[in-house]
Amino acid sequence: MFSGFSAFPLTPLKNGDIDETAFTGLLQIITAAEVDSIGVIGSTGNYAYLTRAQRYRATEIAVELAGSIPVMSSIGAVSTDEVIRLANDAQKAGVKGVMMAPVSYQKLTSEEVFGFYERVTGELSVPLYIYDNPATTGFSFDDELLMRLSFLPNVSSVKLGFLETDLSLATQRIGKLKASFCEGVTLGISGDGRAVRGLMAGCDVYYSALGGLYPRELLEMAHSVLRGDVQRAIDLNALFEPIWAYFSQYGSLRTIASIAELRGLVQSPCLPSPLLSLTGEDRTMLAQIISKLELE
Amino acid sequence: MFSGFSAFPLTPLKNGDIDETAFTGLLQIITAAEVDSIGVIGSTGNYAYLTRAQRYRATEIAVELAGSIPVMSSIGAVSTDEVIRLANDAQKAGVKGVMMAPVSYQKLTSEEVFGFYERVTGELSVPLYIYDNPATTGFSFDDELLMRLSFLPNVSSVKLGFLETDLSLATQRIGKLKASFCEGVTLGISGDGRAVRGLMAGCDVYYSALGGLYPRELLEMAHSVLRGDVQRAIDLNALFEPIWAYFSQYGSLRTIASIAELRGLVQSPCLPSPLLSLTGEDRTMLAQIISKLELE
Repeated sequence: MFSGFSAFPLTPLKNGDIDETAFTGLLQIITAAEVDSIGVIGSTGNYAYLTRAQRYRATEIAVELAGSIPVMSSIGAVSTDEVIRLANDAQKAGVKGVMMAPVSYQKLTSEEVFGFYERVTGELSVPLYIYDNPATTGFSFDDELLMRLSFLPNVSSVKLGFLETDLSLATQRIGKLKASFCEGVTLGISGDGRAVRGLMAGCDVYYSALGGLYPRELLEMAHSVLRGDVQRAIDLNALFEPIWAYFSQYGSLRTIASIAELRGLVQSPCLPSPLLSLTGEDRTMLAQIISKLELE
Repeated sequence: MFSGFSAFPLTPLKNGDIDETAFTGLLQIITAAEVDSIGVIGSTGNYAYLTRAQRYRATEIAVELAGSIPVMSSIGAVSTDEVIRLANDAQKAGVKGVMMAPVSYQKLTSEEVFGFYERVTGELSVPLYIYDNPATTGFSFDDELLMRLSFLPNVSSVKLGFLETDLSLATQRIGKLKASFCEGVTLGISGDGRAVRGLMAGCDVYYSALGGLYPRELLEMAHSVLRGDVQRAIDLNALFEPIWAYFSQYGSLRTIASIAELRGLVQSPCLPSPLLSLTGEDRTMLAQIISKLELE
């Protein structure tokens, strides 16, 4: 579950509720691609904007549709009590794993983050992966804290928040991290534009946001690196470069939601208010990029 | 309500629930000081960590105890739908106003923030103040956006997130802001250590976190500036300097919770997990500072 290629679908909304028809359609594209795992209600799945009941429902739908593909879901929230309630919900819905970012309102200290994971993992019956995403949580893990956390029971993977731009530096750091981690804990890369670099540097798994919309191509990209065909991965990555540029400028979620709207996979708007998908010229140019992408 | 001195009490917890006895005690200290208004479940009141039911209950208790002192409460959340539900709850509980920060998970754009307030204020029957707190929301308002927002219906006050260190620059900016704002919209200062400067520079109201524990002294500090006795305010502020230093180092919430615990006003721990109050040497030194403060 915590290796290879993991796809993270949108949770499309319609008038504030989950658009179950569209959500089912997105999940079918993903299962048809035979991905290694599905990460439902991740950041791209808008977990932070959904009610507890909506989070349960989205997880339940995904588990049902996924068949033998393992499903994990996010249990992130600012309060420990709420995270534990969400963890129980997720396990009841049948997930094979959970992911958790140290979501915060008050900026957290390292000691608080350690205690947070210690409390939560102590109550779990499924593996957890630690989701480092400073842009949304306001907290950046250091390597020492990640190492300590890797030894907690049920911690099985870490999604890196930061990756060196230089490949040899990245390879060095990932080697060092893996050597310091509790045995069996895998390292994941997200932020689609740096996935190939992360996998080349030694990451075990690509947790992919755009993989919710292009699972076939991005799974092929990830598996190419893992089986040693780096050139094939680099070529596939080049195809998506214009989309990575949109991610940098508008954020991956707004870009992905706009693509799903443009491709008619979801209704427009599909994002939870106050978030807005792209409009005007930005949207028109994105439409051109994705129509070109589908011709290749 | 949006002028003078406003006190923001802690919402102390006990085993994950509101410690109603301790909370009532804190509110009684505040009402006895005859503050101009009370801001319940603000950032210091841990709104972000409470369930919807707990937020309702805290607001209800405060309204009941406050008598003729107007109470406002926070309706902040990441999703517009949830904010509107919380706004309805707050109004049902009897608040005279609400406050709202653009709480975020995905970093918001200015356009999203404007739309967020536009939707929410359109559904309100009480005034709202805009709470600019980049440290917790990840969003910084610019003056142009604040000006536009001041013209929305029901917007009545803005709590500034940033204040120039230089008094004359601060005075200049606040004069400019007030001239650009819709008539009647007041400007507030928070971040207790810069309150005197903010009021001297032209702010109308001091939204005070430590004012939940020392309402008499800090009300006197605020009112001194507003009636022109600046020296008295500066002297009072000097008394609290060691506490402002703690705020800078550990955050105001951890410091305030520790003071309340040390003074026996709340049980220990009183903060929602994963947040921790101070321990060890830091706590011992804080105890010395507050015992000295009470001797003056």
